[in-house]
Amino acid sequence: MALQFQTIGLIGKLEAPIPNDLLLQLNEFLLSNGQQVLLEESTAIKIPGHGMEVATLEQIGCVCDLAIVVGGDGTLLHTARSLADYHVPLVGVNLGRLGFLVDISPGEMTVKLSQIFSGHYQEDRRFLLHAEINGKSSTAFNDVVIHKWNTARMIEFETYIDGAFVDAQRSDGMIISTPTGSTAYALSGGGPLMLPDLNATVMVPICPHTLSNRPLVVAGESLIEIIVCGKTDLEQVRVTCDGQTSLPVQRKAIRIRKHHCPVRLIHPPEHDHFKILRKKLSWSGHPVYPD
Amino acid sequence: MALQFQTIGLIGKLEAPIPNDLLLQLNEFLLSNGQQVLLEESTAIKIPGHGMEVATLEQIGCVCDLAIVVGGDGTLLHTARSLADYHVPLVGVNLGRLGFLVDISPGEMTVKLSQIFSGHYQEDRRFLLHAEINGKSSTAFNDVVIHKWNTARMIEFETYIDGAFVDAQRSDGMIISTPTGSTAYALSGGGPLMLPDLNATVMVPICPHTLSNRPLVVAGESLIEIIVCGKTDLEQVRVTCDGQTSLPVQRKAIRIRKHHCPVRLIHPPEHDHFKILRKKLSWSGHPVYPD
Amino acid sequence: MALQFQTIGLIGKLEAPIPNDLLLQLNEFLLSNGQQVLLEESTAIKIPGHGMEVATLEQIGCVCDLAIVVGGDGTLLHTARSLADYHVPLVGVNLGRLGFLVDISPGEMTVKLSQIFSGHYQEDRRFLLHAEINGKSSTAFNDVVIHKWNTARMIEFETYIDGAFVDAQRSDGMIISTPTGSTAYALSGGGPLMLPDLNATVMVPICPHTLSNRPLVVAGESLIEIIVCGKTDLEQVRVTCDGQTSLPVQRKAIRIRKHHCPVRLIHPPEHDHFKILRKKLSWSGHPVYPD
Amino acid sequence: MALQFQTIGLIGKLEAPIPNDLLLQLNEFLLSNGQQVLLEESTAIKIPGHGMEVATLEQIGCVCDLAIVVGGDGTLLHTARSLADYHVPLVGVNLGRLGFLVDISPGEMTVKLSQIFSGHYQEDRRFLLHAEINGKSSTAFNDVVIHKWNTARMIEFETYIDGAFVDAQRSDGMIISTPTGSTAYALSGGGPLMLPDLNATVMVPICPHTLSNRPLVVAGESLIEIIVCGKTDLEQVRVTCDGQTSLPVQRKAIRIRKHHCPVRLIHPPEHDHFKILRKKLSWSGHPVYPD
Repeated sequence: MALQFQTIGLIGKLEAPIPNDLLLQLNEFLLSNGQQVLLEESTAIKIPGHGMEVATLEQIGCVCDLAIVVGGDGTLLHTARSLADYHVPLVGVNLGRLGFLVDISPGEMTVKLSQIFSGHYQEDRRFLLHAEINGKSSTAFNDVVIHKWNTARMIEFETYIDGAFVDAQRSDGMIISTPTGSTAYALSGGGPLMLPDLNATVMVPICPHTLSNRPLVVAGESLIEIIVCGKTDLEQVRVTCDGQTSLPVQRKAIRIRKHHCPVRLIHPPEHDHFKILRKKLSWSGHPVYPD
Repeated sequence: MALQFQTIGLIGKLEAPIPNDLLLQLNEFLLSNGQQVLLEESTAIKIPGHGMEVATLEQIGCVCDLAIVVGGDGTLLHTARSLADYHVPLVGVNLGRLGFLVDISPGEMTVKLSQIFSGHYQEDRRFLLHAEINGKSSTAFNDVVIHKWNTARMIEFETYIDGAFVDAQRSDGMIISTPTGSTAYALSGGGPLMLPDLNATVMVPICPHTLSNRPLVVAGESLIEIIVCGKTDLEQVRVTCDGQTSLPVQRKAIRIRKHHCPVRLIHPPEHDHFKILRKKLSWSGHPVYPD
Repeated sequence: MALQFQTIGLIGKLEAPIPNDLLLQLNEFLLSNGQQVLLEESTAIKIPGHGMEVATLEQIGCVCDLAIVVGGDGTLLHTARSLADYHVPLVGVNLGRLGFLVDISPGEMTVKLSQIFSGHYQEDRRFLLHAEINGKSSTAFNDVVIHKWNTARMIEFETYIDGAFVDAQRSDGMIISTPTGSTAYALSGGGPLMLPDLNATVMVPICPHTLSNRPLVVAGESLIEIIVCGKTDLEQVRVTCDGQTSLPVQRKAIRIRKHHCPVRLIHPPEHDHFKILRKKLSWSGHPVYPD
Repeated sequence: MALQFQTIGLIGKLEAPIPNDLLLQLNEFLLSNGQQVLLEESTAIKIPGHGMEVATLEQIGCVCDLAIVVGGDGTLLHTARSLADYHVPLVGVNLGRLGFLVDISPGEMTVKLSQIFSGHYQEDRRFLLHAEINGKSSTAFNDVVIHKWNTARMIEFETYIDGAFVDAQRSDGMIISTPTGSTAYALSGGGPLMLPDLNATVMVPICPHTLSNRPLVVAGESLIEIIVCGKTDLEQVRVTCDGQTSLPVQRKAIRIRKHHCPVRLIHPPEHDHFKILRKKLSWSGHPVYPD
C-alpha cells in the first residue's frame, strides 16, 4: 500500500540545541519507509554531517506532503505562521514535555508516525489570525496583542466589529485570541477556554479600568478593528503576534481577521484534546471511589 | 403596498399588572393598519372589555405572522420558550426600561412598528437550548443550570462533549448558556460575553473547587452531557431552564443541545446590540476631548 | 525536664472509620512519656477495648493542656468550633494527605510530637467568626455563608459594616471568610488569599448581579450585618457555618463578628505555611536552571 | 474660639491649567478667617498677581497646620508622596468630579472648610508604601508595581514575605497595593477592595501564567521582597510608584514595606467612604419598592 505522505519536511527547534540523534533517527526511519526527506535549512546548520537534502521553509511548504516539527508548542507556532500560506499539514514531536500542539513523544515516535503514514490519523484544522497595521501585515496562531509599551499608564482605544462601534476602553491592552491561543496568554488575562474547532475569536481586555469590560467572543469571520485614541501616545503602544513580532502603531485602525488559509494539524488516531487539557490544567479524571 | 405581517399576536407581561391602555392603543393602531389581532388568553383575562379575538399561545404560534410581546426581557424569554417549535417572529415593546431583547419603547412604538410593517427591519436569529433529563425535556433561551440544591456542599459531576469525557469537577454547579444568556447569569458566574449571532455555547462552572475549571466555549452543535457522580446526593441537585422550571435529576446524563428551531427576533432598522451593551454595562462611548 | 503538655486529649475523625492502630499507638507513645490521655467520647465508641479514659469535648477543653486531632482539616475545623470557648491548643495529625491545618503526617508523628512536647513548636493564633441570627448563634473557623436555598433565583440583601450602610446587592449569596477560610470556599468564589495571621475578614459575593460587587476586605474587629431585603422570600435563604449548620433567617440583621476567644494551633518547629500553599495550589518553588 | 488650623498651605493641580478664581477665592476666605496662607511655588507660577506668600512643598510640610489640595485624586496622591515625611494633614477640594480622596466640591467649599476649621471633621489615617531598589527609594500612596517593560514576554520573579520564600511566578508583573490603591490599578488586576483603615497590603499578580497565583493579602507591617529571576532580562523590568516614577531593577531584592509616617486626610464630618464607593462603582443604594 502506498504511504499517504511521500515527501516529508523536517523542522527542528529554533532557539536551542537540537537533539541531533532524534532527527537522524527520524531521517533513517523515513528513508527506510521509502519516503523522501527535506531538512529545513536553519535546522540543518546545527547538524553537522546530516547528509540530508536541505530546503527553505517555503520549499517545504511547496513540495512536502507533511512537515514534522520537532520541538515544543513554540516551534510549531512559529512554523505554522511561516507556512501560513501553504497547505502542507504539520505533525509535532515534542521534546521534554507534552504540548497542546506537539503531542507525539520521542519514545512512541516511530509507532505513531507509522499509524499516520498508513492513513490512521486525525486532521485538526485551526485558523490563524491576520493582523494589518499601517500597510504591514503579520499572522498569529495564538494571539494578536495590543500592548501598552514602555509606560506604566493605561492606553485608550476604540474597538469596532465588522464596522460597528463597540466601545472605547482604557486598559493595559487587548488580547485577540484564536481557540488555539485560548489556553495561552488569553487565559492568564481572564479569557475563557475555547475548543480548538470553534469558529470564534475572543477579545480579552488586559486589566481594564472598567470592570464590565469583559472578554467578548465573536464569530471567526468578524473583522476586528482597534484604533488607539484619546491622549495615548502612539510610542507607548505596540502590537505583537504570538509574542514575537512587535509592530508600532499609528492613529489608524489595526485590522484583525481570520487568515484565509487554515493550519492543518495531524494527530495520532487516539489524540484527545480533553486529556491534554486535564493534564495541563490539573483537572480531575473519572473519580474512583473505594467500595 | 401590502404589509409584511398581516396577522399579529399580542402577548402581555406575565406576573404583573398589564398596562391596558398600551395594549388597547396597540390594538387600535394595528386595526387601523388593516391587520388582524389575536390577544393571548392569559393576557386577555387581565383586560376587561378588550373586544379582541382571544387565542392560546400555540394558536398564535400557528396562525400569526408576528407576535408583539409587551413586557420585559423575562416576558420575551418565556414567550420564546413557549413558541420554541413555531416559526413566528417576535418583536418586543419594553415597559420601564430598555432590555437586551425588548428594544422598542412605548413612546416610539407606532413609528417603529410602521417601519417594521413596511419591511424595514433587522431579523436576528437566536438559538434555544434543549435539555433532556430522565425522559423529560425543557427549553431555555438564556441558560440551562445544574445547581446544588438545598445544601451547602459542593456537588460533583462529570462532563462529556459529543461523547468525549471532559472532566469531573466539584463546584456549586454549571451554567450552560447561549449567546443570549451570556449577559445574564453566566456573566455573574465569570463567563465571557458572546455576540448574539455566535454559534456557540458556553459552560461556566459556578464557584469550582479547582481554579483552572474555567468557562469553556464549545460549538453550538455540540451535545453536552452532565452526569452527577461521586458521593453527591441526587436530592441535592436540580436543573433549571432560564431560572424557571426546576427538574430533579437521576444518575443518568443530563443532555443539552441546540434546539432544532431558532428564535426569530425582529428589531427596528437602526437596532444596535453594541449600543445596548454600552448602556447596560456602562461601557464608554466615543471619547470626546475638549480642545 | 518536665514536658510542656501533661494532659492530652485525643480526638478522632468524625464521619469515617478511624484508624484504631494509629490512635492506640499514639496512646502508648503518650503514656510512655508519662503523659495522661483522655479519649473523646464519640471517638471512643469506635475503638473497642481501647482502655483509655473517656471524656466529652468540653471536659477535654477544660482539663487538657493539648488536644491532638487525628483526621483531616474538616475534623480540626469541627473540633476548633466545639472548643471555641476553651483555651486548649490543638495539634493536627493528618490522615491521607497534608492539610492546611493538620500538618503532621502519621509517619513522623512521634518525632514531631516529641519536639513539640519539649517546647520546640510554633504557636499560630487564628480567629473564629461568631454569627448571630434571630437570637441563635454559631461559630465558624472558615466561613459564614449566606446562601440562596431551594431556589434558582438570586437573593437580595443589604450589608452594613460597623453600622454603616455599604450597599444592597443581588447575588447567590455572600461568603464571610476568615484568613483560614480564604483557601476554601471563598477562593472558589473569587476571593483573595489572606495570610493566617492577618487580622481581617473578607466578604465575597457569590455570582453577584453587579460586576463591581467585588470581594471586600475589612478589619477583623468589624461588625458585619446582612439584612435580607426586597422581594426575597425568607424561606429561600439559609446561613451556614463552615458548611455544616444551616440556620433559617428572618428579616433582621444577621450579625457576624470575630469570636472573643482565638484558636491556638500548635505546629512543629519547621512549619511553613507558604510550603503548604505551594503544594496545595501548585505554585512554583525556586526555579532551577541547568548550567 | 480659636480656629484649629492657623497656617494653611494651598496646593493646585499639577499638569493642567489651574482655576485661578477658585484659588483666589479660597485665599480670600482664609484671610477673612484670620488664617495665614502659603501658596505652593509651582502653583504660584501659574497665577499671575496672586499676592500670596509663596513656599516650597517642604516648607508647607514644616510650617503649615493644614494643606488644602485643589485638584483630583492624582494631585492629592502626588502631594501625599511629597509630604510623606511631614505630619501636616491634607484636605482635598475636587475639580470636576468626586474623588476617593478629594471629596469637597468647590460649591460647598467654604461651608465644609468652616466646619473643619471649627473642629468638626473626620481624620482618616492612611499608610504609604516605601520601595527600596538598588539603594534608591521611593514612596507610593496607591501602589508599587513591578512591570514587564518594553517586551511582550512574561517576567519571572521570586517573592518573599518577612524573609520567607513564597513562590516563583511568571506573569506580566505584580501590583503591591495599599488599601487606598485597592480601588485603582489593583482592582483592574483582579484584586479585592480593602477598607481604607485596614492595616494590610495586597499583592496582585498581573496576568499570571499559573491560575492559582491569586491576590494575596498580607499584614501592613510585612516586608515584601521581589527578586527578578530566571531568564528574565533586567532591562525588561521596571518598578513604578503610583504610576509615576519608573525605576530600573537589578538582580537584588526590591524591598517594599509600610512607610514609617502615615498620611493624615481630613474629611468633612459627614464623609462616608461607602457612599463614594457606591457612586464610583455603581453599587445599589437602599432598594425602594413601589407599593
